[in-house]
Amino acid sequence: MNNVVSELIDKLGEELVISGEALAQRVTSFWDNSPTTALAMVKPRNTQDVSVAMRICHDHGQPVVTQGGLTGCVAGAVATPGEVIISLERMNGIEEIDAQGSTATVQAGVILQNLQQSVAEQGLLFPLDLGARGSCTIGGNVATNAGGINVLRYGMMRNLVLGLEAVTADGTVISSMNQMLKNNAGYDTKQMFIGSEGTLGIVTRVILKLYPQPISCNSALVATNDFNNVTDLLNTLQRDLAGTLSAYEVMWNSYFQAVTVEGAHRAPMSRDYPFYVMIEAEGADIDSDTERFNRLLEKAFEDDVIVDAVIPKSEADRRALWEIRENFEAILPENEPAYLYDVSLPIKDMHDYVDKVLMGLERKWPRGVCYVLGHVADGNLHLFMKPGEIGALHSDSDAIVYPPLQKVHGSVSAEHGIGTEKVNWLDSSRSKEDVAIMQLLKGALDPKNLLNPGRVLKA
Amino acid sequence: MNNVVSELIDKLGEELVISGEALAQRVTSFWDNSPTTALAMVKPRNTQDVSVAMRICHDHGQPVVTQGGLTGCVAGAVATPGEVIISLERMNGIEEIDAQGSTATVQAGVILQNLQQSVAEQGLLFPLDLGARGSCTIGGNVATNAGGINVLRYGMMRNLVLGLEAVTADGTVISSMNQMLKNNAGYDTKQMFIGSEGTLGIVTRVILKLYPQPISCNSALVATNDFNNVTDLLNTLQRDLAGTLSAYEVMWNSYFQAVTVEGAHRAPMSRDYPFYVMIEAEGADIDSDTERFNRLLEKAFEDDVIVDAVIPKSEADRRALWEIRENFEAILPENEPAYLYDVSLPIKDMHDYVDKVLMGLERKWPRGVCYVLGHVADGNLHLFMKPGEIGALHSDSDAIVYPPLQKVHGSVSAEHGIGTEKVNWLDSSRSKEDVAIMQLLKGALDPKNLLNPGRVLKA
Repeated sequence: MNNVVSELIDKLGEELVISGEALAQRVTSFWDNSPTTALAMVKPRNTQDVSVAMRICHDHGQPVVTQGGLTGCVAGAVATPGEVIISLERMNGIEEIDAQGSTATVQAGVILQNLQQSVAEQGLLFPLDLGARGSCTIGGNVATNAGGINVLRYGMMRNLVLGLEAVTADGTVISSMNQMLKNNAGYDTKQMFIGSEGTLGIVTRVILKLYPQPISCNSALVATNDFNNVTDLLNTLQRDLAGTLSAYEVMWNSYFQAVTVEGAHRAPMSRDYPFYVMIEAEGADIDSDTERFNRLLEKAFEDDVIVDAVIPKSEADRRALWEIRENFEAILPENEPAYLYDVSLPIKDMHDYVDKVLMGLERKWPRGVCYVLGHVADGNLHLFMKPGEIGALHSDSDAIVYPPLQKVHGSVSAEHGIGTEKVNWLDSSRSKEDVAIMQLLKGALDPKNLLNPGRVLKA
Repeated sequence: MNNVVSELIDKLGEELVISGEALAQRVTSFWDNSPTTALAMVKPRNTQDVSVAMRICHDHGQPVVTQGGLTGCVAGAVATPGEVIISLERMNGIEEIDAQGSTATVQAGVILQNLQQSVAEQGLLFPLDLGARGSCTIGGNVATNAGGINVLRYGMMRNLVLGLEAVTADGTVISSMNQMLKNNAGYDTKQMFIGSEGTLGIVTRVILKLYPQPISCNSALVATNDFNNVTDLLNTLQRDLAGTLSAYEVMWNSYFQAVTVEGAHRAPMSRDYPFYVMIEAEGADIDSDTERFNRLLEKAFEDDVIVDAVIPKSEADRRALWEIRENFEAILPENEPAYLYDVSLPIKDMHDYVDKVLMGLERKWPRGVCYVLGHVADGNLHLFMKPGEIGALHSDSDAIVYPPLQKVHGSVSAEHGIGTEKVNWLDSSRSKEDVAIMQLLKGALDPKNLLNPGRVLKA
């Protein structure tokens, strides 16, 4: 047996370390059913175990990869055969919910939905929300600075983290478990661990900011004929809903058509409009909020900003509308390639950008399709590129999607991160000097390059 | 003439470098009228000038201190005689206001109030706001991660910065001028420069997030008899105003009495209540927002949560109420010491904490007074300690204010930063490992310790 693995077993006990056949029983990720391949997997119970494991790996120069809910979209947590996996699945304790101070203290392995439900029982809201809520973990959300459907109102994960604890490459525990909204005593070191995808440290515990559970919720699916109307409506709602607008999710016609084909979701209105927008506002006064929401939609209708609207009559209706936006399995082909993108760019450049991608696709793959949807208010689009041909076409697809982004100073990753999939495109979104600073940080915190090596930065 | 100074003049021109008598004409800071003492002051016109100046200083191992509006409360920008000052006062251009994308691109020397006014002319809001608005600069706001009176709703400066450009110790320009709300392409390197008080780089340009200008504004000054009522009212308003609560500023009786003495501000209600709260909510619908605001206050009155309230009838009335909170010159003694503190701690521990400080004061200085006020919703208190005796009593005062904070894991600086004044207390708010990480960062980015040396971290 490998020296590292035997020392891990020795120090942590057999029940915390799995390898061989037991490890191969586990799938690689949510996106990949093949068996997990790695030297071994450690399943620490607490921060101390993580620290012990890292000290051993550090001594041996052993690379590790940290795993949470395995729902990441950029293959950042996929282990290579020579790596040791640190899976935080056992560190799933919610340690404290402080209702008066509106904070939650949790271990990194807590599943997002479990936290959402636990705080809801106390009348509170943890506002981060995304399709993978049932599997993704808080630690993964922190490591990737997760976004999702409520960013508009509550910000990304970075905005919801008050304090954290992390283990660095040599096993040192960095405790920065701040619970105050404001703390300018020294550098805000926790920021380094947020969004650096586990390459600077392993997040083990987190203190999160909670909000009051909203009392009213108004939703609508609306249709527009023009992208200018999409942005006009957004600006009007931002202003006139006074910050209560919590979701503004736009679907291009190609996406809407695909997810409402026969046998998939039921289309609640004509399938022929160029743009569909799922709108949601959360407030505190059911009657006056509903009156205002409906009044603003009526006004938008009168002004020809929207051309159709469906307002859900029940929670089941509302969920059915959200399914159209969130549940896109219908468009993922079984036996042919499809590539998911997550770009951000200024809203004013969005329409032209999508046109350029479609033109590039048409030129390269005349039978291809591109489904577009996104958190438009955040400047964030998701694209599913379906070449309509068989083969390893990811790089060709990247070459259609990314270059037009550079001209508008867009980003190759709005919320999914870089992982391994976008490592070669990092330069196109960041300046040379900025990448050099990242390398400097990585070198200072993880000089042996042991933590998630090859993710974010080239190995 | 000193070699560094002559080379600065040589490369940048005489009009950009002042020293000697011209420099002594300038006051040290807003808080200190004594003449500025430093080797020289450079007044760059643009990022390139800053880079040239830093390259020269780096070659000579010359320490520098960066100056903005000189309103900082922890003496972080006060030059020592051997330092070169880089003053960003000439870099005061507002480069672009993008109304569609809700962003502003500015040079670091722009005065906060000028930016607020410029964006307001386009119907937009830059929400950072603090008493020093007429003098403080955006660069200083970024470097210190400024807070102020709207943090509750819009967050601190960190939350409002989308992109920035900084010059590091060796003159390298790091451009991270992102304009999107979401960008997870690599480490968010700009976070390092926010709140690190100019010790890791000189912020030269910034892209800021703007909001719609609010349409309605409701304010009230209320009084309560009990601190529990202060927190109950806060929780109620947070929930029932659905995130439109923008200010919740609490004044303890001692403060209120002092600023409303004969000849100072007019007291709009009895001066004998234990707690006063200045409340403000910004919304989008004048009629329904006002109705809701007044209804919630009436309910609080009926429930004995508040015992008195004044609602301003005009903008002049509203400004007069805010003067009580913001304009505290009346309590700053002319010829005896007074020390300003800026601590944060969990709200649940606040009342006990203030009691402990008052007891400590009573024990040490029986004739002393402590005025307390603060952004309670953010867990942030300001204390003015007035020993009532003459002498250099700052350390003795610190020894009353800071130790009780440690027990509740509070912070010695909520928003003012560490500067030079709190360097010896940094350890009391941060773990040993966390301070070691700060030192690691400082060493990696500024190995010669040239940028604001001795600020934040011990020299």
